[in-house]
Amino acid sequence: GGNVAHPTIQPSANIITIFGAGGDLTWRKLVPALFDLYAADYLPEEMSIIGVDIKELDDAAFRKHARDGVGKFARYQEEVKEKWGAFAERLSYIQGDFSKSETYKELGKRLKERDKAWELEADHIFYLATAPAFVEMVAENLNEAALLNDHVRSRIVVEKPFGHDLESARALNQELLNICPEEQIYRIDHYLGKETVQNILAFRFANALYEPIWNRNYIDHVQITVAESVGVGHRGGYYDHAGALRDMVQNHLMQILCLVAMEPPVSFGADEVRSRKVDVLRAVRPIELADVPDVAARGQYGEGWIEGEHVKAYREESDVAEGSTTETFAALKLDIDNWRWRGVPFYLRSGKRLSERVSEVVVRFKPVPHQAFPETLASHWQPNDLLLFLQPNEGIALKMQAKVPGLGMQLGGVNMAFSYKDAFESASPEAYETLLLDAMRGDATLFMRSDQVEKAWEIVMPVLEYWQQSREIGRYDAGMWGPDSATELIARDGRSWVRPRQLE
Amino acid sequence: GGNVAHPTIQPSANIITIFGAGGDLTWRKLVPALFDLYAADYLPEEMSIIGVDIKELDDAAFRKHARDGVGKFARYQEEVKEKWGAFAERLSYIQGDFSKSETYKELGKRLKERDKAWELEADHIFYLATAPAFVEMVAENLNEAALLNDHVRSRIVVEKPFGHDLESARALNQELLNICPEEQIYRIDHYLGKETVQNILAFRFANALYEPIWNRNYIDHVQITVAESVGVGHRGGYYDHAGALRDMVQNHLMQILCLVAMEPPVSFGADEVRSRKVDVLRAVRPIELADVPDVAARGQYGEGWIEGEHVKAYREESDVAEGSTTETFAALKLDIDNWRWRGVPFYLRSGKRLSERVSEVVVRFKPVPHQAFPETLASHWQPNDLLLFLQPNEGIALKMQAKVPGLGMQLGGVNMAFSYKDAFESASPEAYETLLLDAMRGDATLFMRSDQVEKAWEIVMPVLEYWQQSREIGRYDAGMWGPDSATELIARDGRSWVRPRQLE
Repeated sequence: GGNVAHPTIQPSANIITIFGAGGDLTWRKLVPALFDLYAADYLPEEMSIIGVDIKELDDAAFRKHARDGVGKFARYQEEVKEKWGAFAERLSYIQGDFSKSETYKELGKRLKERDKAWELEADHIFYLATAPAFVEMVAENLNEAALLNDHVRSRIVVEKPFGHDLESARALNQELLNICPEEQIYRIDHYLGKETVQNILAFRFANALYEPIWNRNYIDHVQITVAESVGVGHRGGYYDHAGALRDMVQNHLMQILCLVAMEPPVSFGADEVRSRKVDVLRAVRPIELADVPDVAARGQYGEGWIEGEHVKAYREESDVAEGSTTETFAALKLDIDNWRWRGVPFYLRSGKRLSERVSEVVVRFKPVPHQAFPETLASHWQPNDLLLFLQPNEGIALKMQAKVPGLGMQLGGVNMAFSYKDAFESASPEAYETLLLDAMRGDATLFMRSDQVEKAWEIVMPVLEYWQQSREIGRYDAGMWGPDSATELIARDGRSWVRPRQLE
Repeated sequence: GGNVAHPTIQPSANIITIFGAGGDLTWRKLVPALFDLYAADYLPEEMSIIGVDIKELDDAAFRKHARDGVGKFARYQEEVKEKWGAFAERLSYIQGDFSKSETYKELGKRLKERDKAWELEADHIFYLATAPAFVEMVAENLNEAALLNDHVRSRIVVEKPFGHDLESARALNQELLNICPEEQIYRIDHYLGKETVQNILAFRFANALYEPIWNRNYIDHVQITVAESVGVGHRGGYYDHAGALRDMVQNHLMQILCLVAMEPPVSFGADEVRSRKVDVLRAVRPIELADVPDVAARGQYGEGWIEGEHVKAYREESDVAEGSTTETFAALKLDIDNWRWRGVPFYLRSGKRLSERVSEVVVRFKPVPHQAFPETLASHWQPNDLLLFLQPNEGIALKMQAKVPGLGMQLGGVNMAFSYKDAFESASPEAYETLLLDAMRGDATLFMRSDQVEKAWEIVMPVLEYWQQSREIGRYDAGMWGPDSATELIARDGRSWVRPRQLE
C-alpha cells in the first residue's frame, strides 16, 4: 500500500538487473537512487532488483553492502531506518561470470519465478554498469538466453563511454543494433538527468517570451562552461587515455548545446525530442583539420592552489603516463549552419582543476540597435546576458541595465534572477533517480540515441586527430580558468569568456 | 567648496522663487527637496531661494517654518544640524500680494541684486506653488515686470491640475503661451519624477531583450494600476469636484501608458521624448460617447475595513457633498491604433480606499504558439507576465514557467525578479528633487508639454461627459479592489485584473 503518490509516472511491474553489481557505480549511485525512488513512493509494489557480478557474494552480503551505500549516499536518510527492511527484500544477487551462459540461465529462471509469483509479465531492465569491454558480451548473452525477445518490455541500459572515437562508437552501435532494435537501448548521459538541464526545455518551450529572440537576429554568441575544481583523482588510468574532449565535451557539452540550440519540438515524445537534438549536431559546420588551431584549444593543469589548498600537477597524478600530453582542458568554437544560428558562434569549454566547480550557459545578446541615451551613458552600456546556472546552484538570471537610483540618468547592471532552491521547497532528485525511473517507464527522451552519439563523435574527430599528431600542449596553473590558448580562441573574435558567477 | 560631487548634472547659478511659499507644498515637499539637493552637493554655490506669499512673515520666520518642514520631511536628517545654517542663508522672503505689481518690482530688485553680488547672470525659476486660480495672474505679472524676457534663463514651473477639462486646459495653455513660449513652461506631474517611472525608459531602451517582443505579436494586453489605500483625507473639497479620472487617470496613468507604449526615441532630448509620448496619446482610439459604459467603469467607496481599521464612506468624509456622485475609482480600457499596438487593449484603473497602496504595470504576454508539453501539463500552463513595480517596493519581475524539481516534467510558476532596494545601496531621491533639479538645469524631459496635457484631456472627455449625465455610480466597500463594474469591464474581453502583488 501507499504507492499511489505518483500514479501518473509510476512505472508498471519491473525487475532491474544490474551487471556489475559489485562495482562503485552500483554502490554509490544506482542502489541509493533506487532506494530514494522507493522511499518517495515512485516504485510499484511489484519491483525487484537483481545484482549480477563475479564477486563471491550472497544475497545477505549484497544487501549489507548496499545498505552501507544507501546510508552514505541516499537522499532520504530519515527513511532508511523505517523502509530499508522492505526495500532490502527486493534485492537479490547472482554470482556469475558475464561470459558464461549459466549466469544468464540462472537470471532467466529468476525472472520467470518473479513473474509467476506476481502473476503478470514484468518489464525487464538490464543495467550494464560494467566496464565498456563487457557491454557487447553481456548484451549478446542476454539475447542468446532469449531475454531480449520482448522488444517492448525488455531494455538494456548502457553507461558511457560510447566508444573512444567515431569508429569504435559506430562499431559498438552496430553490435548492439545487431542484437536488438534502437528502442530497447538506453544510453545514459547522466547530465541529461539533471534538473536544470531538463529545465532548459521548460524554459525555452513553456514560456512565450524567449523563443522570439532566440536566434541570430538577437543573440551574439553562446558560451557553455562545465568547470570542475577536482583533478583526475583515482581515474588517472582511464582519463589519461581519454582527455577532456572525450570525457566531457563530446557528450555532456554537446548535449547542452543541443538543448540550447534545438528547434521547438512538435511534442515531448522521445524520438521527436532526440531528432530535434540531432538536427543541431547535423547542422554543426564540420571542422577542417587545418582549422583546428583556430577553433580548438587545449591545456593540461600544472600544480597550483585551489581554495587555499596546494594541488599537484596532472603529470604527478597516479596512473598518468610520464610526459603525458592528454588534455585536462578543452575549448571549442562551433558554428551551426542553419537558418536560426548562422553566424552565432557557440563556445564550449570544460576542464579539471579550474578555479571552481560551476556549469553554466551564457547567452549573450547583441547590443541595442540604437543608443538613444547620451554618449556618456552609452559608453558604460553592457549587453544583456541570459545565464542558465546548471550547477552547483541551479537557476536562471538575466543581466540587464536599469536606471541607477539617483538624480540624472545613469545605467547600472542588475540581475533579474530566480533560484531553484528559493522557488521550490522540494529538493532536486539525483540524475540517476530520474534516469532509472525513465528507463523503468520506457521513456527514452533523456537517453542518447545512436545517431546522436555518432554525430557528436563526428564533430570532434578532426580535433582529436589534430591533437594526436601535434604533441604540443599548453599548461595552466591549477586554480586558473584554463590555458592562454583558450583566451586567444575567443579573443580572435573580439570576445571574451564570461567569468562564471555563482547564483546567490 | 565641496560642490564638485556631481559636475555633469549640477545646474549653473540660479534663483528659485516660490509663489505660495506659505503653503503646504512648499513646506512639505519643495524646501525639503531643495535642502536634500543641497545636502547631497547637487546645488551650485550661487543659488538662492525666495519665498513669496501674502502671509505676514519675515526672512527669519520663513526660515524657521522651513526648518521645521525640513526636520520632518527631508531625507538627509543627519545633515540638517551641520548644513542647515548655510542652507538657510539662501532663503529669503517677500511678503506680497500676487495681484500687485509692487510684489514683482520687489522681486525684480532682489534678483538683480543677487546677479550683481555674484557677478553673473543667474537662471531664474519661478515656481507657482499656488492655487490654480493664481497661475495666470502670477505669470502675467512676471511678464509685465519683464522677468520672463530671457527665454533661455527664465522658467516658470506650474503645478497640476492643468485645467478641469479640455476646454479649461486649452484656455490655460493659451494664456500661458501668450505670455511666454512653451520652452519656458515646466508643467509638473510628480509621477514622472519617480525613479521607477523613469526606469521604464531605461528598461525598455537600454536592454536589447524586450523591445523585439514589445508589440502586438507577443503581448496580449497591458494593465496599469495605481491603487491607494488612503481616502480623500483633508482634500474632500477639491476632490469632490475632481474625482479619480481627473485626479489620477488623466495625468499619472496616462503618463505611465505613454512610457510603456511609446516608440524608441532617437535621443533623450526633452522634445524628442515628449513627442514620442504624445504620439501614443494621438494614437489612442477616441471613445464614442455611446461606448462609455463598455470601456469605462467608476465607483465610490463605502465604509469598510483597511488593515484592521474601520474607515468611513466617501460621502461621510469632510467637505464632500451630501449624495455626491463623484467617483473615487475609475477604470478605462484604451485601444491604441498604431502599427505596434493595434488589438492590444490597455486597462487602466485607479482608486482610493483600495486594499493596499500599490502601483504597477502588468504586461501580459500571449500564450506559446504551440504546446509541445503533454496535455496534463499544458492545462496548468500560465502566461508570462512582466511586472513593473512602481511603488511602494520598486522593481521588476517576470512571471514564467519552470520545471518543478522532481521526477517527471511538471511546470510551476516562478518569478525572475530584481528589486531596486536589493540591487542598489543608494536610496531613491524624492520625485521633487529630480524635478526641481531638472527645472534648474533646464531639462524639460520629465515635464508635461501643452500638447500632452490637451491630448490626455481629449481622451477622457467623453467619459467625463457621460458620467456627468448619468448620475448612477456603483459602490465598493473600502478595502476591496473597486466596484463590480470594473471586474465586468475586463471580464467582457475574457480577461481579469491581475491581483497586485508586492515585490518581496
